[in-house]
Amino acid sequence: MRSAVEQLANQNSLNLVCHEHRIGEPLPSIEKLNKFVGIVREILFPGYFGNTSLRSNTIKHYIGVYVDELFELLSEQILAGLCFTCANPEQVDMQERSKFAQGLASEFISFLPEIRRLLVTDVEAAYLGDPAANSQSEVIYCYPTIRAIINHRVAHQLLKLGVPLIPRIISEMGHSETGIDIHPGAQIGEAFTIDHGTGVVIGSTCIIGSNVKLYQGVTLGAKSFPLDKDGNPIKGIPRHPIVEDNVIIYAQATILGRIRIGANSVIGGNVWVTSSLPPNTKLVQSKAKETDFSDGAGI
Amino acid sequence: MRSAVEQLANQNSLNLVCHEHRIGEPLPSIEKLNKFVGIVREILFPGYFGNTSLRSNTIKHYIGVYVDELFELLSEQILAGLCFTCANPEQVDMQERSKFAQGLASEFISFLPEIRRLLVTDVEAAYLGDPAANSQSEVIYCYPTIRAIINHRVAHQLLKLGVPLIPRIISEMGHSETGIDIHPGAQIGEAFTIDHGTGVVIGSTCIIGSNVKLYQGVTLGAKSFPLDKDGNPIKGIPRHPIVEDNVIIYAQATILGRIRIGANSVIGGNVWVTSSLPPNTKLVQSKAKETDFSDGAGI
Amino acid sequence: MRSAVEQLANQNSLNLVCHEHRIGEPLPSIEKLNKFVGIVREILFPGYFGNTSLRSNTIKHYIGVYVDELFELLSEQILAGLCFTCANPEQVDMQERSKFAQGLASEFISFLPEIRRLLVTDVEAAYLGDPAANSQSEVIYCYPTIRAIINHRVAHQLLKLGVPLIPRIISEMGHSETGIDIHPGAQIGEAFTIDHGTGVVIGSTCIIGSNVKLYQGVTLGAKSFPLDKDGNPIKGIPRHPIVEDNVIIYAQATILGRIRIGANSVIGGNVWVTSSLPPNTKLVQSKAKETDFSDGAGI
Amino acid sequence: MRSAVEQLANQNSLNLVCHEHRIGEPLPSIEKLNKFVGIVREILFPGYFGNTSLRSNTIKHYIGVYVDELFELLSEQILAGLCFTCANPEQVDMQERSKFAQGLASEFISFLPEIRRLLVTDVEAAYLGDPAANSQSEVIYCYPTIRAIINHRVAHQLLKLGVPLIPRIISEMGHSETGIDIHPGAQIGEAFTIDHGTGVVIGSTCIIGSNVKLYQGVTLGAKSFPLDKDGNPIKGIPRHPIVEDNVIIYAQATILGRIRIGANSVIGGNVWVTSSLPPNTKLVQSKAKETDFSDGAGI
Amino acid sequence: MRSAVEQLANQNSLNLVCHEHRIGEPLPSIEKLNKFVGIVREILFPGYFGNTSLRSNTIKHYIGVYVDELFELLSEQILAGLCFTCANPEQVDMQERSKFAQGLASEFISFLPEIRRLLVTDVEAAYLGDPAANSQSEVIYCYPTIRAIINHRVAHQLLKLGVPLIPRIISEMGHSETGIDIHPGAQIGEAFTIDHGTGVVIGSTCIIGSNVKLYQGVTLGAKSFPLDKDGNPIKGIPRHPIVEDNVIIYAQATILGRIRIGANSVIGGNVWVTSSLPPNTKLVQSKAKETDFSDGAGI
Amino acid sequence: MRSAVEQLANQNSLNLVCHEHRIGEPLPSIEKLNKFVGIVREILFPGYFGNTSLRSNTIKHYIGVYVDELFELLSEQILAGLCFTCANPEQVDMQERSKFAQGLASEFISFLPEIRRLLVTDVEAAYLGDPAANSQSEVIYCYPTIRAIINHRVAHQLLKLGVPLIPRIISEMGHSETGIDIHPGAQIGEAFTIDHGTGVVIGSTCIIGSNVKLYQGVTLGAKSFPLDKDGNPIKGIPRHPIVEDNVIIYAQATILGRIRIGANSVIGGNVWVTSSLPPNTKLVQSKAKETDFSDGAGI
Repeated sequence: MRSAVEQLANQNSLNLVCHEHRIGEPLPSIEKLNKFVGIVREILFPGYFGNTSLRSNTIKHYIGVYVDELFELLSEQILAGLCFTCANPEQVDMQERSKFAQGLASEFISFLPEIRRLLVTDVEAAYLGDPAANSQSEVIYCYPTIRAIINHRVAHQLLKLGVPLIPRIISEMGHSETGIDIHPGAQIGEAFTIDHGTGVVIGSTCIIGSNVKLYQGVTLGAKSFPLDKDGNPIKGIPRHPIVEDNVIIYAQATILGRIRIGANSVIGGNVWVTSSLPPNTKLVQSKAKETDFSDGAGI
Repeated sequence: MRSAVEQLANQNSLNLVCHEHRIGEPLPSIEKLNKFVGIVREILFPGYFGNTSLRSNTIKHYIGVYVDELFELLSEQILAGLCFTCANPEQVDMQERSKFAQGLASEFISFLPEIRRLLVTDVEAAYLGDPAANSQSEVIYCYPTIRAIINHRVAHQLLKLGVPLIPRIISEMGHSETGIDIHPGAQIGEAFTIDHGTGVVIGSTCIIGSNVKLYQGVTLGAKSFPLDKDGNPIKGIPRHPIVEDNVIIYAQATILGRIRIGANSVIGGNVWVTSSLPPNTKLVQSKAKETDFSDGAGI
Repeated sequence: MRSAVEQLANQNSLNLVCHEHRIGEPLPSIEKLNKFVGIVREILFPGYFGNTSLRSNTIKHYIGVYVDELFELLSEQILAGLCFTCANPEQVDMQERSKFAQGLASEFISFLPEIRRLLVTDVEAAYLGDPAANSQSEVIYCYPTIRAIINHRVAHQLLKLGVPLIPRIISEMGHSETGIDIHPGAQIGEAFTIDHGTGVVIGSTCIIGSNVKLYQGVTLGAKSFPLDKDGNPIKGIPRHPIVEDNVIIYAQATILGRIRIGANSVIGGNVWVTSSLPPNTKLVQSKAKETDFSDGAGI
Repeated sequence: MRSAVEQLANQNSLNLVCHEHRIGEPLPSIEKLNKFVGIVREILFPGYFGNTSLRSNTIKHYIGVYVDELFELLSEQILAGLCFTCANPEQVDMQERSKFAQGLASEFISFLPEIRRLLVTDVEAAYLGDPAANSQSEVIYCYPTIRAIINHRVAHQLLKLGVPLIPRIISEMGHSETGIDIHPGAQIGEAFTIDHGTGVVIGSTCIIGSNVKLYQGVTLGAKSFPLDKDGNPIKGIPRHPIVEDNVIIYAQATILGRIRIGANSVIGGNVWVTSSLPPNTKLVQSKAKETDFSDGAGI
Repeated sequence: MRSAVEQLANQNSLNLVCHEHRIGEPLPSIEKLNKFVGIVREILFPGYFGNTSLRSNTIKHYIGVYVDELFELLSEQILAGLCFTCANPEQVDMQERSKFAQGLASEFISFLPEIRRLLVTDVEAAYLGDPAANSQSEVIYCYPTIRAIINHRVAHQLLKLGVPLIPRIISEMGHSETGIDIHPGAQIGEAFTIDHGTGVVIGSTCIIGSNVKLYQGVTLGAKSFPLDKDGNPIKGIPRHPIVEDNVIIYAQATILGRIRIGANSVIGGNVWVTSSLPPNTKLVQSKAKETDFSDGAGI
Repeated sequence: MRSAVEQLANQNSLNLVCHEHRIGEPLPSIEKLNKFVGIVREILFPGYFGNTSLRSNTIKHYIGVYVDELFELLSEQILAGLCFTCANPEQVDMQERSKFAQGLASEFISFLPEIRRLLVTDVEAAYLGDPAANSQSEVIYCYPTIRAIINHRVAHQLLKLGVPLIPRIISEMGHSETGIDIHPGAQIGEAFTIDHGTGVVIGSTCIIGSNVKLYQGVTLGAKSFPLDKDGNPIKGIPRHPIVEDNVIIYAQATILGRIRIGANSVIGGNVWVTSSLPPNTKLVQSKAKETDFSDGAGI
């Protein structure tokens, strides 16, 4: 084992795989970001998430405390994100950077009422779109789409404010929790809902209109991307679909590339779509065929 | 931030998003339901789940204790479910409701032996259906399908007893843990198995026969549902497939609507099926075609 | 409830469902294996996983300590795996078996540098294959594929050393965390990457070349398997695909059976492939058709 | 062991030693009372106890939330105390008792400002009485006397409100934490301080004036107590000392019985006092004598 | 710091201060012994300690499970004690030693009913001796003497069975929790009680009769001890007091050496006693004297 | 309750009792200081404290890691202490202060080898002074004096380096754990031991020689102290005893004021000493007297 230790601690073998930490800088922390997400959810849907037994005569105190805790947690994690991605740490004035992080956290908080407004439209859409839902309460409390879309709307806002790394971690946390993978860059309109959700992927340059509904396993992805002269992918080029208002996409459909799915279209499950569709298109997979599976026990 | 707090605590903005709690009523608790599921699993498969180092001469004591703990936990959570969904809380006699909840918990416990009997058939089916399984032990210990189907059979029984909300939470817990989303309303026969499982969706009015096997990503979903005159979906109408005995459905197949998949059928992967199939049907996707992906690095 | 306890503790009803524990033998422990995986990740990518605030002047001490802790944890869990699957426990000399387990743990540790070398190629592949990735750091820190492939390369090595049960648990832990289900038996070359990943399944006899990229929902599975004369599946027969170098497979494609996907092929999403393909094949689903979804609100 | 289990579960051997629990009633909980004490301390000395990073612009929100949490915790624990000590549980209307407990909790909260006022005088007294104290902050943060006296003033108030059992548990928690054992019945004036404190005992019928200072190991105890005709001690008879204003009592002094220590007295350490002393008494132990300890290594 | 690490890891500096651990041997664990003590308390006083909400119809199951858990925990910790104090570890057959430890644990369990019988006399004595006690329940639940005497009676029995180290740790745990320090070697009769208790010390060769009551701060200690020719104290010589039946000793009294305190004696507080006293002695400190404390603010 | 909240949050009532926190500054943390003390103990006595299963071939790695963790924890807590006691926070350059704290932490670490050397003499003294001790191992593992003296020697060194507040908290942690209260200012020589220890108090200006032994309940305190013209105690004046080499002080003795206890003296238990004693003095309490306790059941 001694030799393994030598090799694993050998400086050459540590290129790329090792992240050094500078003392005094906060670290991005999954644990703290989990707490952050927990508090955001409590603020947005008080009484549904967390352990608070909320009563209306005290709600303002609770919101006040949660917002204060949020501010402190988020300021630190934004600072951690700035430090993690910083190329020239020795040239940084930490006190100034810390103030900058607090400014971003504060700005984020001012967007929370708007985020809640959007989420209410999402809850309504999920409720109206599912006969199995007994109430909006049940949707908020039990439906993974709500957790995924909270994480997304929060992460998206942070990304727009220029916060590095942290939005990506928050969206991955939602992905791990729900199986729904939405890149924080994706722009998503009102009344958005994903039924069941496992396996859904929404890429970073997607633009999704209002009142769109996806089922489990739907991909809104890239088909290809240009490389620069060194063979590295070129960043930031629009390469994911635009989905217009009132579109429904059934389970496992794969929609790739910077194409446009016109308003009011319905895409059947399991189809492969790589070109734009005009509004009102209804599309299904070509008919399956009967066959003979006679070669073994599996079938 | 002060203004954000004002807006977020503003009574108008709290409609729909806020769940008030009445002191003295228990709250539905993910943490306690996790504990409940943990104990149910220990009772059903003693020595496999939990930390117990079980020995045969003491097993009756352990079962006795676990059943007692289960009774207490479940009584409280059923009561929490009744309170959560109660429209007129002020008219309720809590002591009576508490007794009622205890009665339901007690009734549920009397079904545990039957639930275990069904699960044994599921374990056998998974073992016989997978050459990679070294033993039934490995299946019980490692296969996510077992965890999902335990949660389902438990949640389904609770739903049949009329318990509100709690069954739905238990099935979501299984969904989050395994990626398998089975609505507690679904009726599932003996010797049921799901291989790998991620992305499987089984809707609330599904009826599944004996000896059915699904692969990952299979959807047994609704295709559409009628609205009432106010535009709300009508509850409780059968809208998910009936799958008869001995059917196998391969990965990512999407089966939608109140259709019937006849006994002994085999559905290939990635197909879209929205009409009934007679017994013994063997169905696969129409043949893929060769093409040219020449437009970028992605492909 | 008394009657339920009697039935549930009844010896007949305990066949198959009960795992007895012999005092003094360690139990396989999800909690300890989680810790094991956490430490392996810290050793392989120091400073990225865990809570360590690592600095270069102390890294050797940290690696030394982690390797020592790993050795102790792994020795115990290997021993637990040997005991769990042991048919004749009374004939075993525990002290010898314990030494044997330590020997396997020690051998495993000597493979860690090679495992890290492979993982570096995986990180590079993920980075180069995704324009949304801002740095290799972000890939290591946030991409579920990295967590899944770490678990796989570790579990695969343990399986090759002959460790029972434990590799399977480790791969299931990765499955539960990421939605990516790779059997520890699968052989996977360098520079392997899975984008997004939810729903991917890779079977136990798969052989995957270098520089292969899969998208979410791809299945490399078995189509069928022969039964022995008692109706039990025959173990160990190659039944999953061989995927050659430089292949890309898009979302939700289902590739089944002991077929060969030739080098440099590109498989489009949602296709069903059950026969071998020559090198350089480009395959997509047959064209979807327009249709009429007029029967309800769902569509 | 089977026989031990039989004996230990035998109904006869369970008299006195077994406390049965009626389902639906809360249990007194050390864990919850610890939380209660933690929150009380945070309310009384905000920013010193607990983990709150308090800022003045948010303090009202924090106090509001803490008071609300206190109310809920305390209501439940008072109810638990009422149930624990209830002789005829079957005749109780739990809903009414629960309201009654809430009323007591609410009344207790209205005394918190007065409790804080008293504690401020205690802090000042400790600070002025100890040259080693650098600031009042240090006294609040580090001196065990403050923790003991907080617990006492809280427990005393609860006892005065008629709450059973709970005050006694709270004072024992303070005893275990600091070594200072003050019965909740003791009446203690302003500006009270105990230096170091380990071993101090203050009995239930003590009456202590203002500006009294005790050192470690001081006992204000009972010397004897009358028995009733069955040989049981008669409850509630004054049997502990009255200590008037401005008294100082040095380490390990033992003051027993319903005697009166007059104002401004100073009692030296290690004395045994069982009769009243007039005001301004200065008392020390009779002089020690030289001796010969020649009989061994201990001395 | 590098130099400090070198010095602290230097082999010479590690003599005496370093305890090496042999892999595969259990370690004495404060955490596990705390759990052990918790379970013993639950078995002896079911429903008072721990979190169990006990009901009479299930008590036998609970006792059965707790005894089983106790057996496993204790077997392991006895084994740990044997390993910790073992001089020639390489000559040990661990499997045999493990059996031996299990035998001791099993024997200990057979003494639990007798230990409970003794403790019931202790509870009664504490209740009858304290007018402030409202019930035996309160005594069991709140009085530190009960926790200390449980630990002692358990540790004493383990010591008598020849278990090394573990009894000493258990008594120290009681000491830390209550401030009462009873060496496991002390022999203590029925109906023993310690009021308040902080600072009580009872040495290893003490013999205490029935119906003895001590107050806080009482020492039953050694006055001196002979040395061997190397200057080391000779082990095992009786050097602590014998206290006969029905003795009461008030706070802070110090009783040293192998002397005998005759039956029915009463020792006042703060006295220093180093010679035997005949039965029925009543002893108090010589009278304190008035004095002048004029030299400063402290007095 | 609303009115209580108003009063408790009222600015006037918050003077003295409220500690505001400036964002970005670390807080003194009992939890972190507990961790700090745990790591110090592991470094000083490796294999005795903590959960490490230490083996000699890896000890240097462990020490290296622990020292590194210690450095980070301590730097932060020193910084927290500096911030807590800082009068003019707005004038502080945090980055400089942080560097300063790191310098102090680093200096402290360089004293660890000397602290360990002293502690070895303490362990030897405790072992040689107690016939009940079976080995030095048992002393290190079980004797509270060792925990108290570790905390003291660490806190004393930090105080000497000028660290504010933190040393005081560390000594209080030792006090709470062991009942032994040693002010960090006290100077204590080699081979110091305290038997049993509960109730011992050692004041801040004490000077204790080599080879001194105290028993439980001994006070080395102040008798009085001068006030300044405002009535505040004057800080820093020597007011506690000097105890020379080879002195033994028995249980509960109270030694007060800036007096000198000459070398080789033996002070019997329960005496009150307020004047200096020449070397070789042997002192005991004046003889107790027989008396009549006839007034009740207590006696």
